[in-house]
Amino acid sequence: MLGVAALLSLSACNCKQECQTNQSDNAAVVMENILNRKSVRSYTDQTIGDDTIQTLLRAAMSAPSGMDVRPWKFVVLKDKSNFDAIFQNNMNMEKFMQAGVVFVLCADTTMVKRGSTTGERVPDPIWRDDMGACTQNLLLAAEAYGLGAVWTACYPYADRMESVKRELGLPSEVVPYCVVPVGHHDGTTQPKDKWNASNVHYERW
Amino acid sequence: MLGVAALLSLSACNCKQECQTNQSDNAAVVMENILNRKSVRSYTDQTIGDDTIQTLLRAAMSAPSGMDVRPWKFVVLKDKSNFDAIFQNNMNMEKFMQAGVVFVLCADTTMVKRGSTTGERVPDPIWRDDMGACTQNLLLAAEAYGLGAVWTACYPYADRMESVKRELGLPSEVVPYCVVPVGHHDGTTQPKDKWNASNVHYERW
Repeated sequence: MLGVAALLSLSACNCKQECQTNQSDNAAVVMENILNRKSVRSYTDQTIGDDTIQTLLRAAMSAPSGMDVRPWKFVVLKDKSNFDAIFQNNMNMEKFMQAGVVFVLCADTTMVKRGSTTGERVPDPIWRDDMGACTQNLLLAAEAYGLGAVWTACYPYADRMESVKRELGLPSEVVPYCVVPVGHHDGTTQPKDKWNASNVHYERW
Repeated sequence: MLGVAALLSLSACNCKQECQTNQSDNAAVVMENILNRKSVRSYTDQTIGDDTIQTLLRAAMSAPSGMDVRPWKFVVLKDKSNFDAIFQNNMNMEKFMQAGVVFVLCADTTMVKRGSTTGERVPDPIWRDDMGACTQNLLLAAEAYGLGAVWTACYPYADRMESVKRELGLPSEVVPYCVVPVGHHDGTTQPKDKWNASNVHYERW
């Protein structure tokens, strides 16, 4: 597992002289990863190491958040005997049982009141947006490591939230936002080209 | 501007023989980009080309979305005389006037009812989550191209939404989700290390 400092200093290429790795090469790698990400719902039975799990969590925690509140919390399931309790409300459960690890992304929906000296907590109006970015970072990191993942929503579906909250013993102020099974993908899912020029307006609608 | 096919086939490295670019190198580049992303609020006066603008939009449209609804719409402002109308409710407006381009990420909050043969539209329960992922993709692509960007929220703040909606002439069903100024960063903003092991629980809270 590379630390942050090592990752930040790592260049894209191991060769010393012949290879002119530069920013545009790296940008192409990042774009390739963004375009290659897809929702993968079936997996091989290969395991996923703890180093990789930590790397994906590090990516998730690197998301931006409103007022730097960082509302994210994670429950990581590696024991398959715990998977079915999480997916009991999901019709695709059987496929997800093959995942190597399941991330339950949760959010503390409260934050310290701005300017409070007593730590008074108030509702965070934008925790949900932060969690969207956090989830996307995890999905992109999984893609980068050759893994398949899929975002399955909990919030705002009351039945899913209630069962996941109960099964995981979440505190009252913590909401289960989504469940992301991650595994080695079986190669059957291809990315979609979702470019649509009609989505774009210039200067005014 | 590279097309999708070219991007997807591009390897990380231009050299032909000496360089063993492999998946782990590319994964490190992707992780470096995720960890390096920061909220950049001050910019140089360098311009941003249309090719780059299109690449950032392509990244944004590559986000996942619930039921593949793809709720995202974009208003792109290149004319600085239009910037102040957008930022009039934001205290940091002066800095943002230096941005090379401003993306207003919007969402159609309705979707075709599942199974409808008449195109009947109903509220989309998870457009907001899709928009979080869409925004994060745009921010990560900006970082990859050496640009600085910052997510400034519109939704759910009524005053900001009303003014942006009015200034841009958005249709009634379209919500302005956030505003992202993008420019060449002046190098003063460093990324934060937000790793926090206490955010992680295993098997159960």
